[in-house]
Amino acid sequence: MAVYTHVEPDDLAALVAQYDIGTVVSCKGIAEGVENSNFLLETTRGRFILTLYEKRVSEGDLPFFVELLDHLAKRGCPVPAMIRDREGRAIQQVSERAACIIQFLPGISLTHPTPGQCQAAGAAMGAMHRAVADFAGARENSMGHRHWRAIAQGAGDLDAVIPGLQAIVDEELDHLDAHWPRDLPAHVVHADLFPDNVLMLGERVTGLIDFYFAASDFRAYDVAVTHASWTFSTDGSDCDIGRASALMRGYAREVALTDEEFAALPLLARGAALRFLLTRAHDWIHTPPGALVTRKDPAPFLARLRRYQAADAAALFSAA
Amino acid sequence: MAVYTHVEPDDLAALVAQYDIGTVVSCKGIAEGVENSNFLLETTRGRFILTLYEKRVSEGDLPFFVELLDHLAKRGCPVPAMIRDREGRAIQQVSERAACIIQFLPGISLTHPTPGQCQAAGAAMGAMHRAVADFAGARENSMGHRHWRAIAQGAGDLDAVIPGLQAIVDEELDHLDAHWPRDLPAHVVHADLFPDNVLMLGERVTGLIDFYFAASDFRAYDVAVTHASWTFSTDGSDCDIGRASALMRGYAREVALTDEEFAALPLLARGAALRFLLTRAHDWIHTPPGALVTRKDPAPFLARLRRYQAADAAALFSAA
Repeated sequence: MAVYTHVEPDDLAALVAQYDIGTVVSCKGIAEGVENSNFLLETTRGRFILTLYEKRVSEGDLPFFVELLDHLAKRGCPVPAMIRDREGRAIQQVSERAACIIQFLPGISLTHPTPGQCQAAGAAMGAMHRAVADFAGARENSMGHRHWRAIAQGAGDLDAVIPGLQAIVDEELDHLDAHWPRDLPAHVVHADLFPDNVLMLGERVTGLIDFYFAASDFRAYDVAVTHASWTFSTDGSDCDIGRASALMRGYAREVALTDEEFAALPLLARGAALRFLLTRAHDWIHTPPGALVTRKDPAPFLARLRRYQAADAAALFSAA
Repeated sequence: MAVYTHVEPDDLAALVAQYDIGTVVSCKGIAEGVENSNFLLETTRGRFILTLYEKRVSEGDLPFFVELLDHLAKRGCPVPAMIRDREGRAIQQVSERAACIIQFLPGISLTHPTPGQCQAAGAAMGAMHRAVADFAGARENSMGHRHWRAIAQGAGDLDAVIPGLQAIVDEELDHLDAHWPRDLPAHVVHADLFPDNVLMLGERVTGLIDFYFAASDFRAYDVAVTHASWTFSTDGSDCDIGRASALMRGYAREVALTDEEFAALPLLARGAALRFLLTRAHDWIHTPPGALVTRKDPAPFLARLRRYQAADAAALFSAA
């Protein structure tokens, strides 16, 4: 959860006056988006999300995100459109931060998805992959495979988080470097499509949100991230085959993975588990006492890594 | 800021189904209310606040708050009404906590009120005092004068928060015990009407919120709390006479304080400053690292206490 930066009412009124969206009725900080400050902004003409970009989102990347969301919205994906001001600008400055006013989408973030909801999420991801295929933009995945060794080195004392973790990570990095696929279908992917980044009403996907890790990578890696985040028990020890097969079935309705991609999925999922294990360990070590964010336990992603390392891991990706 | 407790979508749907308020469209945790979990709930029929009551609000007190808000709403005060379900109940159970669905009010919480906004807040407090005068309910002020010595004793090592604080507090408690008024006009008061508990649009008060410290006390003590929280610089060292006189002027439009009340205001304000100094010191000592709440610095209320102790403090309460 977030809301780091306060917006003065006068600054807010001045910002909103640049747009054709009426005048401010209410503005409440909301507990969504770990990297940014988010506000639910109500005006006389509707509801919007006001996002102020904090540390991790580089201002230089913002035009990429704006263009990506525009592209997906035009193709009918349920992503929040960036609202333009009267001069066509989507990116503003508020309280010394870059800021965007974004379309409000209905729906609720899930915590314990059902198989039906996993299937819907898989289908929405597949439709998003089809829509993004002709997107001209590209962005280095700074949280991708090529960067994990550096992220591991910069995380701090991994053994202080989980005893023995450093050796596990070193061994896994060696394995992934030796076996990571060189060539699979790739385009811009979400790369962080956890349940809290999918809004749903019942079994209907009403929003795919928080594209701030979106970057160029294998589309099957996106499937692996979503598999790792939608189909496991809270402690990461158990993959629910019912939810996993539903997710893969939903995705297969929109995108037919190649044999090479299917074969690579267990390895890509090991990578996905490692990526979140490393960044959570980093944040665990570096989150100061009294910070506004809840530190997320890295251990459940070590448990997922163990599961994906098992000899029978390929069975977790069956749509049957 | 808060949001401690998560509400599962199924539990939310079941709760909302008990009311005539349509079905859930969206539900977002919001960063308001330090003691409770608050959600902005949108349904097909409107917007509401869903509050789940955490530790500090006793379930036994909830009927008092419901009746108080009903009473004030009926008399035209801009307070959020508690929504009743089809069987007339305002208090429910969700996620093992007492919960209420509450009317959504427009407006924005202020941080740096102008004199015009102070005047409006003073008038709104005065109108609320007039409206509450015939309210039959009563509630012991567990944060009131009679409890400060116990709060000080339970706070922990005050000198670890601010060196020398224990002696300052002991001396002030002795002074307040010796001089605290025995008999002034009293009724239920808000007792925590800080700027973040007043919603405004421009200079219009659209909401008085967060009545969970409301209790029976001198009405002039409520004026003192509001004075201490609306008229000082952020560090508490400087009382802005322009804002202070505007606050008193606004209040005077609705309520004519007696000479005894005016004479007591500096002492009551010393008490108000001590009350928030003590509870902030307590929370400073007891808030665990990584907690979701920001600890509030107690020092600015020590600075206020010093200002109210000064020989010329009576001048801070002039409406002229």
